[in-house]
Amino acid sequence: MKHRRILLLNPGAMGAAVGACCKQAGHQVYWVSEGRSPASRQRAQAQELTEAATLREALRKVDIVISVCPPHAAQETAAAVIEQRFRGIYVDANAISPATSQTIQQQLEAARIRYVDGGIIGQPPAKAGTTRLYLAGADAQEVAGLFDGSWMDARCLDAPAGAASALKITYAAWTKGAGALLGAIRALAQANGIEEALLDEWALSQPELVGRSRYVAERADKAWRWVGEMQEIAATFEAAGLPGDFHHGAAEIYQRLALFKDVEEAPSFLQVSNALLKP
Amino acid sequence: MKHRRILLLNPGAMGAAVGACCKQAGHQVYWVSEGRSPASRQRAQAQELTEAATLREALRKVDIVISVCPPHAAQETAAAVIEQRFRGIYVDANAISPATSQTIQQQLEAARIRYVDGGIIGQPPAKAGTTRLYLAGADAQEVAGLFDGSWMDARCLDAPAGAASALKITYAAWTKGAGALLGAIRALAQANGIEEALLDEWALSQPELVGRSRYVAERADKAWRWVGEMQEIAATFEAAGLPGDFHHGAAEIYQRLALFKDVEEAPSFLQVSNALLKP
Repeated sequence: MKHRRILLLNPGAMGAAVGACCKQAGHQVYWVSEGRSPASRQRAQAQELTEAATLREALRKVDIVISVCPPHAAQETAAAVIEQRFRGIYVDANAISPATSQTIQQQLEAARIRYVDGGIIGQPPAKAGTTRLYLAGADAQEVAGLFDGSWMDARCLDAPAGAASALKITYAAWTKGAGALLGAIRALAQANGIEEALLDEWALSQPELVGRSRYVAERADKAWRWVGEMQEIAATFEAAGLPGDFHHGAAEIYQRLALFKDVEEAPSFLQVSNALLKP
Repeated sequence: MKHRRILLLNPGAMGAAVGACCKQAGHQVYWVSEGRSPASRQRAQAQELTEAATLREALRKVDIVISVCPPHAAQETAAAVIEQRFRGIYVDANAISPATSQTIQQQLEAARIRYVDGGIIGQPPAKAGTTRLYLAGADAQEVAGLFDGSWMDARCLDAPAGAASALKITYAAWTKGAGALLGAIRALAQANGIEEALLDEWALSQPELVGRSRYVAERADKAWRWVGEMQEIAATFEAAGLPGDFHHGAAEIYQRLALFKDVEEAPSFLQVSNALLKP
């Protein structure tokens, strides 16, 4: 495949790793420094991504944009690209509902930008075999080819745009939804003075839960960005006529943990319980 | 321990097994036939429980009552016993919130009936080691002794009445809450045309979910009685200032599956999905 120029919006932990995979496959990957944090700069430089000062400048150089950002920022990221009269392929790889994906698709296509719907499952890849980028839409195959020979396992779904978002949403509905539920249960046990008895019963009959119930503590630094993701998931359930309640609950849990944003060290479960019980 | 006379309300699948454990321990166990189904009669006879025609007749013979019933029936069961001017120990072993347990306790104690709070974790015991009956309250030790030498592992919590209910509630909050969540997710995947892709991704990265997601199908015959249990769980979360949403969602899922009440054979997942998506 020929050498391509790609803009990666933006180099967060996952975004920088996605950009690194495109570089690994032999492409040139840009990032936009305007308005980004020192941590983003550090990650972009560590992966040797090419700096562009502004979005405008970057979009003049590339023919593919890949959006990897918190779900609540997905629409404004697409809107900013449309505003610059970009022509090319726009990949949204965010944890958004199929309906939000469809809205973005319509806005992009009205501006004559080709849309590919994506969803990432797994951790930021630091080796092969850990992470899939699912893709759907007319140009999915072309985008998948960008990752040939990289650590990212890019897979095309034989389905229209929206399917990759739906897959990501249903996958995260369990991992992050169940994580929130389990954390809330453990806080509830504490509030009722039976946390030790519950942990003893779990050790006996559900031994994996003792460790799993620490998920919300171990991932507390990410909670702030999962609020929007839980809302996208709830909206997806409701659009299908299913109850969105599970993920409204999960959104509330992660909202109460947003104070742990970017902490260096995971809080103790007691700190998590206190944040959940006395918000 | 001396031979006691115990009334078991009522011989459902779990109740009959609890009664059988008391018999195993050498006690005489009564059941009330008035108003019960042929299936209850069959279970009571299979366990050789002693029939009493009416609640009034049974209460004249026993000094301990154990209530094992769907959570929505727990309060009326206690009220019926109070109305008969029973004097003795009343054990509520149902999946009720600590607040409901406290209400029942107050009503019983106002009628000079001693209250023991209980919660059963595990399947109806058909051998030793599968099932715990947690007990809390001033007379918990005496009730635990009723099961000495039986298949039921009766355990006293060093905590006031309400603690056993809280333990049962927090335990079921995961098993039945997560089961409902997983079933809803799989139905959502079907509604979005990506069920196969989700099952493939699960097989790759969360292999236990493929089987676990059938929980709502395998237990569909019990869904009708879990609606009330999910509501008790939601109320317990809300009483602690935590979101009750997870279990409002689970209650809705089990409500939609209530049509499978007492089916002989578990429905297929497609039948479950259809019930969830087109209620």
